[in-house]
Amino acid sequence: MDSVEYDNRTVTRGALQYTGKAKQVFTTDDPNILWVHYLDQATALNGKVKETINGKGELNSAISQLLFNYLTENGIKNHYLGSISKTDELITSLNILPIEVVTRNYASGHFVSKFDAVAMQQLSPIVQEFYYKSDALDDPFMNDSQIIALGYATSDELSKLRYESLMINQRLTELFQKANIQLIDFKLEFGRTKNGDILLADELSPDNMRLVDITTGNSLDKDVFRKHSGDVTVGYHEVLTRLQQVI
Amino acid sequence: MDSVEYDNRTVTRGALQYTGKAKQVFTTDDPNILWVHYLDQATALNGKVKETINGKGELNSAISQLLFNYLTENGIKNHYLGSISKTDELITSLNILPIEVVTRNYASGHFVSKFDAVAMQQLSPIVQEFYYKSDALDDPFMNDSQIIALGYATSDELSKLRYESLMINQRLTELFQKANIQLIDFKLEFGRTKNGDILLADELSPDNMRLVDITTGNSLDKDVFRKHSGDVTVGYHEVLTRLQQVI
Repeated sequence: MDSVEYDNRTVTRGALQYTGKAKQVFTTDDPNILWVHYLDQATALNGKVKETINGKGELNSAISQLLFNYLTENGIKNHYLGSISKTDELITSLNILPIEVVTRNYASGHFVSKFDAVAMQQLSPIVQEFYYKSDALDDPFMNDSQIIALGYATSDELSKLRYESLMINQRLTELFQKANIQLIDFKLEFGRTKNGDILLADELSPDNMRLVDITTGNSLDKDVFRKHSGDVTVGYHEVLTRLQQVI
Repeated sequence: MDSVEYDNRTVTRGALQYTGKAKQVFTTDDPNILWVHYLDQATALNGKVKETINGKGELNSAISQLLFNYLTENGIKNHYLGSISKTDELITSLNILPIEVVTRNYASGHFVSKFDAVAMQQLSPIVQEFYYKSDALDDPFMNDSQIIALGYATSDELSKLRYESLMINQRLTELFQKANIQLIDFKLEFGRTKNGDILLADELSPDNMRLVDITTGNSLDKDVFRKHSGDVTVGYHEVLTRLQQVI
C-alpha cells in the first residue's frame, strides 16, 4: 500500500526517513505529514536485544491510536492524524525535541536499583526525568541546568514538557484505572510544529509504559519481554481489549 | 596532641567517628564540636586508588582554613571554628545532608564525555548537580523530583543548597580570579545545626575543586593526581601561596 485517502485527498508514501526500535517512519508527498509503519519487533537494552514477535505491530498500532484519540478528546495536542491500516498511521511532521520525558508514579525498574527505592512505592511528588536523546551517549539522564547550558532545550521548553507530561499522566492514569490497570511509569517524546507549538509525538504503547494488572499484579508491558517471562503479546492484547471496553 | 585551648576552655579529642578520603573526624568532649585531622593521602575513582603524599594534609588544611575564613567574612555560614595545628581544626558538629552539590562554571571531566560538551566551554546557566551520598549506590546523580520523592532531602533544602552554592561560587570565583586562577567546578557538602540552620560543611581544597592557572592553563588540583601528570602538591602549594597573597 503506497497511497491512501486522507482529509479528502490522496497521500502517497515516500522515502524511509527513520527506523526506530519497533516502527518505520516514511516521508509523504505532503511535507507536513509522515507515514508510520509499526513493526512486529521488540527490543531491550536500548536496542542491543532484538526479536520478531508476530502481531505486536498491530497491537501497538491499535493501542497507540486509541490512546492518541483519547488524549485529543481530552485537550492534549499531539501529532496523530489518523489510522490508514492495521499497522500504519499518518502523523504530523514535527521537529522532534531531543529530550525524552520519563514520568514515574511508582518506583520500578532501574529507578529501584539505582536509588535504593522500595519497589512499587508510590512516588510523591510524581518523578519526572529528562533524558537527552543520543545513541552515541546512550541517552544520558540530565537535569535542567545541564540541558539548558548545553543548548539541548530551553527553560521554557522544559517547563512545557513537564506540564504536558503531568497533564498526560493524569489523563492516562484515570483511563487505565477504569481498565483496572496501574500506570507505573512511561516515556514520552515531543516535537515542535512550524508554528512553534509543542505537540506530543512518538507512540503510546506498552513498549514505552509499565502497566500492571491491579488485581493480579501481573505485568502487561514490555517488561515481559525484557525479563523473558512469557509471550509479550498476551499482555498487550489484554491492554487493548480492556481499553476498548472503557473508552 | 589530645586537647587544645579553644574559646577560653579546653577541648579534648574523643573517638574516631569517621575516616574520609583524605581526613579523619573525631568527636570531642563537647557534643557540638568535632575535631578534624587532615591526612597525607590522595584518592581517585571514588576511593579505589589511594596513595600517601607527604605534605598534602598540611596544604589542604591551610587552604581550607583560609577559604572558610574568607567565606565567613563574606557572610557565608559554615561549620569551621578554628585551626588548632597545621593539620587539625575544630568544626561545628552538624547533621550532614546526604546530598553533594556540584557547581560547574566550565565543562570539564566526565561532564564533557557524558554529555558531549566542548571541554572548557563556559556554562550558562551555571550547572548545578545533586548527588546522593551513598557508597553502596556509588553516589548517584539525581534530580529534584527523585530526591524529594525518596525523602533524601526536602524541596526547601534543595532550594537552600542551590542558593548557597551559587553565593559561594560567586565569592570563590572572585577570590580565585584575583589569584589568576580559574574556578572550573567544585563539590560542596552541607549540614544542619540543632537549630535547623543549614551550614556549609566538609573541606574546601583542591581535592574537591578544579582549578586552572589562567595564564598557563595548568591544572592546580587533584586532576594532576587522577591523571598521574606530576606532583600534586606543587599545584596545591601554588594555590595556597597565591591565595595568601590576595587575601
